[in-house]
Amino acid sequence: MNYRAVSYYLGVICKIVGVFLVIPMIASLCYREFDVITSFVYTALIYEGVGFLLSPVSPKNKKLGRKEGLITVGLSWILISSIGAFVFVFSGAIPNYYNALFETISGFTTTGATVINDVESLSKGVLLWRSLTHWIGGMGILVFLLAVLPNTDGSAFQLMRFEAPGPQVGKLVSKVRHSAAILYVIYFGLTMLEMVFLLFGNIGFFDSLNVALSTAGTGGFAVHNTSILAYDSLYVEIVVIVFMLIFSINFNVYYLMVLKKFSTAFKDEEFRIYIIYVVLSIVGVALAIMSSVGSFGVSLRHAAFAVVSLASSTGFTTVDFSLWSEAAKAILTISTILGACAGSTGGGLKFSRFMVVVKASYTTLLSSIRPNSVHIVKLNKKAISREDTEGVVGYFLLYILVIFVSVFALSVFGHSFSASFYTTIAMFNNTGPCIDASVGATSSYLAFDWGSKTVMMLNMLIGRLEIFPILFLFSPKVWSRKY
Amino acid sequence: MNYRAVSYYLGVICKIVGVFLVIPMIASLCYREFDVITSFVYTALIYEGVGFLLSPVSPKNKKLGRKEGLITVGLSWILISSIGAFVFVFSGAIPNYYNALFETISGFTTTGATVINDVESLSKGVLLWRSLTHWIGGMGILVFLLAVLPNTDGSAFQLMRFEAPGPQVGKLVSKVRHSAAILYVIYFGLTMLEMVFLLFGNIGFFDSLNVALSTAGTGGFAVHNTSILAYDSLYVEIVVIVFMLIFSINFNVYYLMVLKKFSTAFKDEEFRIYIIYVVLSIVGVALAIMSSVGSFGVSLRHAAFAVVSLASSTGFTTVDFSLWSEAAKAILTISTILGACAGSTGGGLKFSRFMVVVKASYTTLLSSIRPNSVHIVKLNKKAISREDTEGVVGYFLLYILVIFVSVFALSVFGHSFSASFYTTIAMFNNTGPCIDASVGATSSYLAFDWGSKTVMMLNMLIGRLEIFPILFLFSPKVWSRKY
Repeated sequence: MNYRAVSYYLGVICKIVGVFLVIPMIASLCYREFDVITSFVYTALIYEGVGFLLSPVSPKNKKLGRKEGLITVGLSWILISSIGAFVFVFSGAIPNYYNALFETISGFTTTGATVINDVESLSKGVLLWRSLTHWIGGMGILVFLLAVLPNTDGSAFQLMRFEAPGPQVGKLVSKVRHSAAILYVIYFGLTMLEMVFLLFGNIGFFDSLNVALSTAGTGGFAVHNTSILAYDSLYVEIVVIVFMLIFSINFNVYYLMVLKKFSTAFKDEEFRIYIIYVVLSIVGVALAIMSSVGSFGVSLRHAAFAVVSLASSTGFTTVDFSLWSEAAKAILTISTILGACAGSTGGGLKFSRFMVVVKASYTTLLSSIRPNSVHIVKLNKKAISREDTEGVVGYFLLYILVIFVSVFALSVFGHSFSASFYTTIAMFNNTGPCIDASVGATSSYLAFDWGSKTVMMLNMLIGRLEIFPILFLFSPKVWSRKY
Repeated sequence: MNYRAVSYYLGVICKIVGVFLVIPMIASLCYREFDVITSFVYTALIYEGVGFLLSPVSPKNKKLGRKEGLITVGLSWILISSIGAFVFVFSGAIPNYYNALFETISGFTTTGATVINDVESLSKGVLLWRSLTHWIGGMGILVFLLAVLPNTDGSAFQLMRFEAPGPQVGKLVSKVRHSAAILYVIYFGLTMLEMVFLLFGNIGFFDSLNVALSTAGTGGFAVHNTSILAYDSLYVEIVVIVFMLIFSINFNVYYLMVLKKFSTAFKDEEFRIYIIYVVLSIVGVALAIMSSVGSFGVSLRHAAFAVVSLASSTGFTTVDFSLWSEAAKAILTISTILGACAGSTGGGLKFSRFMVVVKASYTTLLSSIRPNSVHIVKLNKKAISREDTEGVVGYFLLYILVIFVSVFALSVFGHSFSASFYTTIAMFNNTGPCIDASVGATSSYLAFDWGSKTVMMLNMLIGRLEIFPILFLFSPKVWSRKY
């Protein structure tokens, strides 16, 4: 294990995130929140100090293998969250460090589950920091590192493959650094575009910026207690719905569009089936809530927002959908689990993985009558190799086992089965709002005990980093010399 | 497709089950329930009539391929349940045919979920028929067919592999017919043994016989409204616990014991881990309910009964465990899902399958850092072939998807998430009692609407026949000539 290289990258990451704190610092200056500025300054100093301690000089051998890549990704997210939490403690927004850590992990992992009951009482600088954690975490801080750092040979790919969401990352262009830069250009551009659209909705510059940052990372932290409902504007809702959907689609599609390869872009199987599925889910939910809501139009509006919010793993709300009918909640549950497309900033199992799992299941079914014929799983009309299929199916097994263990753990802490399950999938898929009525989709998680919060934080990290990096930190085999 | 052979076997099965009706007929005669006898006679006539229509003569070509085997198994279970339900209708025990069908499917699939609120009002003949459906369904009517029929060449294996529970059937001895006969001898012997033990508990011959039949099939129908609690006897509870456990262990173990290969028998990995897991679960549940029950001894008694009842998929009750703490219910949920050992009469995912899935998941985890090394899944210290691992994992995928679809369907019929989930696993794993408090572990399912009951019946059949035979009946590919 190349400990020096791991330490070096951890240090660089800390230094970069520290620089990001300049943004809320400036905001606090502009809004004359002079008492809050010090909390950003102190936290930035901690980031830079820890960064310097971990990487005082650049080591000669910066090469990372798969194992070092995994460990760097896992540790870096824990590290930046642990330091970032001080913003909330120093500013007094969340006096308890453990709660502040929950909020920060929820931010970076783009979950958007909050422990703050009254977000409107927070200073603008702190609010912007919350939204910014979503934006940084959405595309990934390591992907950012790759975009700005000079060539890091094969190591770059080891970092990117484990941090960027979805199974097919890094196929944009052959050069990883180039690829990371393209991703960030598209990401930045779309964020700005959403902000411009929101400005036309007359919600002001600050709110437009925050909502755009939060949507881009498919996070869900809002600057009002009633989330997007606060704007009471159909226009704003439509803009947010469209952009939540945009950020939950594979960025390859946009790259292809930039290259004007429109027909290839629209032929992507995951993209097409995802859109069809979202539309059907919206209609399904609308029908399932119509009797209680009354008009079909209003039902459709609420349904569209909730389905896209959960499928994209954003977690903004306009109504408390935990109070909806069981049929509507069942559809929302599926949206939460299947999640967004691979290669987007969204969470969840990822749509293409689910498609592979369903196809692999059907293959098993066919094998039971025709054991000797070869049954191939195809995606985008191309056969997937047996190894890749096994990889996706293996991921699904781990996904199910993590849910299993988490629901069990939360039950042991005394939560009902329904609350345990819905809290687990909300954290693990990085959506945020809980579909269980006893918790409520628009409530904070402040009341949860520290044990449950620990389980929830682990879920958020395991979910955002797609299981391996975090589980590996707990595996003795990784730390042994043999492996 | 060899339709003649399929029809022939269906007919023979009907004729055999018709003969089994002689047993409750005799019971009714003994207990002088002359008004009930006609319902057995009429139902037996339907069985024999349909049997004759389906197989008037023995066809020359009785050979079954895999596809015919699957279809024969699927159709035969639906057929014998459809006819068997008439016993309840004719006798007036369950006037509604659809409810009677539910009860009969629940019986043959050894689920033990009842729609009868007051079983004590039933005649003894009808009660015995209920218990007998468990006994017939436990080992499988087709396995019985194989044991009594003359040589049926390769076809026999096609039937047995799809009906006998677990992934490793047919390895007892090379000759399938011999193997089926051995299974039934062990099955019959153990049933008799339990009955003798129960007779010493002073619960009378009738109750001893019924409880023994129901335990042997790991069914769960009882002859009292309060199930096993009615006897209020620690001795009876211990006998039932021990035999529920016995019938949930791979029958290979007993076969090895008969051959006096004790060390090989006890070295079986599934058997050993299953026993350890059951003991740990009992202790866990006992600790989780101690604060409400009071004494640890009483907690242990309740916990042992509930854990073994659910792990073995029997479903007898001594207390309503749906009212227990969330932690206790979480452990019971795991018992329900993991189920019994392969090659037993018990249901559930089967313990060895779960072990393979966990090992395959760990393999995936290791592959993520060492993609080029070969990671082998082992069971009983022997490597499992890649095809077999894929088969088990594929089964698990289908298992998860069936639960997914069923929970969704029950939610659409208006049940809460908790009720939908717990009802699904109770039916699909053939345990019977619902762990959800709003349904109750000791209540009947009479109040469920017909749509939900349809979903539940499908779950029972899909679960008992291990997914393939029933799913295939709905697959157009099977009925097409090409396949």
